[in-house]
Amino acid sequence: MGASGGAGAMFATMGALGLAPAQAATPAFQAPRLSDFHLTGRAARTVVVLGGGIAGLTAAYELGKAGYDCTVLEARAVTGGRNFTVRGGTTQTDLDGHTQKAAYSPGVYLNAGPARIAQWMVTMDYCRELGVPIQPFVNANADALIYNEANGAPVRYRTAKADVYGYVSELLAKATDQGALDGRLTAEDKTRLLSFLEGFGAIGAAHEYGGTNRRGFQAYPGAGLNEGTPLPGPPALSDVFAGNVGRYFSFELGYDQAMMMFQPVGGMDRIAAALTTAIGARRVRLGAEVLEVTGRSSQVTVTYRQGGRTRALTADFCVATLPPHLMARVPHNLGAGVTSALSSFPAAASGKIGLGYRSRWWETDLRIYGGITETDLDLAHVWYPSHDFHAARGLIVGYYNTGTAARAYGALTPAERTDRAVMQGVKIHGEKYRSELSSAFSIAWHRTPFLEGAWTSPPWTTPAYRLLLEPAGRVYFAGDWLSHEVAWQHGAFVSARAAVTALHQRVLSTGVPR
Amino acid sequence: MGASGGAGAMFATMGALGLAPAQAATPAFQAPRLSDFHLTGRAARTVVVLGGGIAGLTAAYELGKAGYDCTVLEARAVTGGRNFTVRGGTTQTDLDGHTQKAAYSPGVYLNAGPARIAQWMVTMDYCRELGVPIQPFVNANADALIYNEANGAPVRYRTAKADVYGYVSELLAKATDQGALDGRLTAEDKTRLLSFLEGFGAIGAAHEYGGTNRRGFQAYPGAGLNEGTPLPGPPALSDVFAGNVGRYFSFELGYDQAMMMFQPVGGMDRIAAALTTAIGARRVRLGAEVLEVTGRSSQVTVTYRQGGRTRALTADFCVATLPPHLMARVPHNLGAGVTSALSSFPAAASGKIGLGYRSRWWETDLRIYGGITETDLDLAHVWYPSHDFHAARGLIVGYYNTGTAARAYGALTPAERTDRAVMQGVKIHGEKYRSELSSAFSIAWHRTPFLEGAWTSPPWTTPAYRLLLEPAGRVYFAGDWLSHEVAWQHGAFVSARAAVTALHQRVLSTGVPR
Repeated sequence: MGASGGAGAMFATMGALGLAPAQAATPAFQAPRLSDFHLTGRAARTVVVLGGGIAGLTAAYELGKAGYDCTVLEARAVTGGRNFTVRGGTTQTDLDGHTQKAAYSPGVYLNAGPARIAQWMVTMDYCRELGVPIQPFVNANADALIYNEANGAPVRYRTAKADVYGYVSELLAKATDQGALDGRLTAEDKTRLLSFLEGFGAIGAAHEYGGTNRRGFQAYPGAGLNEGTPLPGPPALSDVFAGNVGRYFSFELGYDQAMMMFQPVGGMDRIAAALTTAIGARRVRLGAEVLEVTGRSSQVTVTYRQGGRTRALTADFCVATLPPHLMARVPHNLGAGVTSALSSFPAAASGKIGLGYRSRWWETDLRIYGGITETDLDLAHVWYPSHDFHAARGLIVGYYNTGTAARAYGALTPAERTDRAVMQGVKIHGEKYRSELSSAFSIAWHRTPFLEGAWTSPPWTTPAYRLLLEPAGRVYFAGDWLSHEVAWQHGAFVSARAAVTALHQRVLSTGVPR
Repeated sequence: MGASGGAGAMFATMGALGLAPAQAATPAFQAPRLSDFHLTGRAARTVVVLGGGIAGLTAAYELGKAGYDCTVLEARAVTGGRNFTVRGGTTQTDLDGHTQKAAYSPGVYLNAGPARIAQWMVTMDYCRELGVPIQPFVNANADALIYNEANGAPVRYRTAKADVYGYVSELLAKATDQGALDGRLTAEDKTRLLSFLEGFGAIGAAHEYGGTNRRGFQAYPGAGLNEGTPLPGPPALSDVFAGNVGRYFSFELGYDQAMMMFQPVGGMDRIAAALTTAIGARRVRLGAEVLEVTGRSSQVTVTYRQGGRTRALTADFCVATLPPHLMARVPHNLGAGVTSALSSFPAAASGKIGLGYRSRWWETDLRIYGGITETDLDLAHVWYPSHDFHAARGLIVGYYNTGTAARAYGALTPAERTDRAVMQGVKIHGEKYRSELSSAFSIAWHRTPFLEGAWTSPPWTTPAYRLLLEPAGRVYFAGDWLSHEVAWQHGAFVSARAAVTALHQRVLSTGVPR
């Protein structure tokens, strides 16, 4: 046991780890069941779902388990919303009139929206339930690069980490040795801290960082007497910190980004496709743009345009999952407060480009198998593919940026975006980044019809946010924007579950039997 | 540019990164080709290869490209040597007479020997060349556990890292604030260091660690107003260091262990199988135990026992890839120095157990998808499977240990090993570790016929080691034991390539044309 009341007390309890039944903040979701209606004299109702993204599909899927008769109205040509995978043949026209048709090779695709799933996310449960196979998504890779333009050359993560951890350990060990922390640390603390630092920084008993094979090799160890050729270095302490590489290290510690992460085999849209299949394609109306929502005491009528014609659909309930800033524009009779609340959700800009290559030079030449290169260029992030390793072709996400950079790229034509992304990427990767390119497809979410944004920053603490958590008459709202996991499918799933639960409980407990 | 001569100078050069042609310590391997014999008047020769592990198979495979007529003698029932994958039906009898037959379900397997591949390893190139598909191997996972018995309960890696990095950052930031490092750091260094620490430790501007959502949640954020339920904690600084969790953090920084790592789809033995197919099964004699090696001026004769009969094989050359401590026992006429040198390689003990489960409770209950739990129990490491996520069944490596612990488990019967491993694993994972178990198979490499060890510690700096890098007459030695990557297939591949290169150059350049 530890010195301060038992080290056992320091750690998460078995329950906290999930090793015993967890004390969840909210009760576990229970999907509506057909049997819920036994003995009640009530029956499942009709529901019109606005939006065929993850939230809308999930609402229809879960309600459907209890026999609700759901119809999903989706304005785009496919379900999924931002869960959008671009393959060879995918065509899209943006709000500026630019039409792109992807020319990727078979098996090559871009997950233009969500592209990774953390282990704890409910998205994993849906993959399991729906039979969507998953595979690792490489969110961090020691052999991926860090490129800060002022440094002139990229450095591998493994090298940058070894140097930063080495010098940090040296500095703290020396301060400890010199007694600078005597007021904070007991003698036992000091011994344990130094033991940790010696290992973590590879600084040895002298507490000096002089490099470590964790940095990697210029040529790795081989046969016979070949001990490998070390990389030049390490650089001096001042140079390591001046290089500003450590700013990228926290990313992989994030509760939502830490490895392992996962992706569906074959593209993120496998989830949307599986939900759509489970719902029944006949219940999903594609190319159906919502024009107006009219709530009444016992029903909701939605008018929409499909195939050039205006149609109306009346149902007992409505689940509205359009992006809030777009729902705010839909005429309705739900009250000015609803419009005002919907308008208080800002829309963020973000863009991605998928660069299709005729070879996987990053694997063969750079020995980078998946992962993310970080840069202070306007590309922000460069992703290497996490699937089909050693295949003939592959796709690099040439930028994944937000805010100003996303708006700058979004303002360019698709061809100009490709040119700029490649020009920047060549700085990191060399000429093959240009010469091996075979095709590109880019998306600017803020310029994409029926979405017009990548995600929002919900006004969580406001009455406006709370207002939309309650139904407006017979209209329920759902989407990642009504969750604490915005921009993640998890948020859309749990928000849809919340709406489904509220709607179903209302049906079970109120009103006359149908 | 940085303060000390340009930050650009600090980083690996483009060449060092492999972004330009690297200055390798040794010339790149060039496989023998049929065309090498054009104009020389010489021709490929016959070669007998002792041992059908990775080194032996590679020697035959590479020599075969130039038409060498190779025969591989392998004492075990399958090729691969320690590259050994146990599936349902696999049977093995150890040196103590214990016979096990694996009862794993279809698709469930144990890579009993090598089980992971780093991106830089030549093993990746062989997978590509041989058409062996690869997939990520999860060598580190933020949701895997650390269990030090005195702490009483496991903690997730993400939580342990957040706390250790938080307190380390706090301590160093405070020492820096107090001027304790003024002699070592410039004002600019200090600013940059503090900026790094604030992010790395999530300690804020006050330089106090008070927890961070990187620790994970008891219940993760959800819909509406659900911000998630934080884990209890963080513990006090003294308790964090007393828990001794940081000792496990360096593993994933290793040049040979850092993520990403990979594995062949379907089992590591896919590599051995692909090599065997490429060589031609007719060239591989299984169940063939080497009895004696006789070198002469122009040929080598090997006697061996197969199917109860003693046979002899004479060839122009021999490539000997048996484990050195076993080769030392084979009678030969290559000189006492060779025997003495072979005897100077010690054999290490190591063991693994594969626990087959009827459910993947670690995924559904613990949300652990692959990765390694570290413990100070004699189990050492517990591995969760990196493939077939969400399948009905799966296999946990219940221990992977070395030295004393491996000898202790190895001395038990297979059933006793299972009992002990499960008893220990229950401490970490709870009763499902026992109740969901369906079958087990264990290996003690030091008690495995024709191998009798897991790996060696080569006497790299001795004349004995150097002696075996040269041919003993017409006998060449190869194996991971003659490389600087012992216990990795990479070592076997590069050593075999070295032997092949030397042998082929000799044939091309010396002696009379055949």
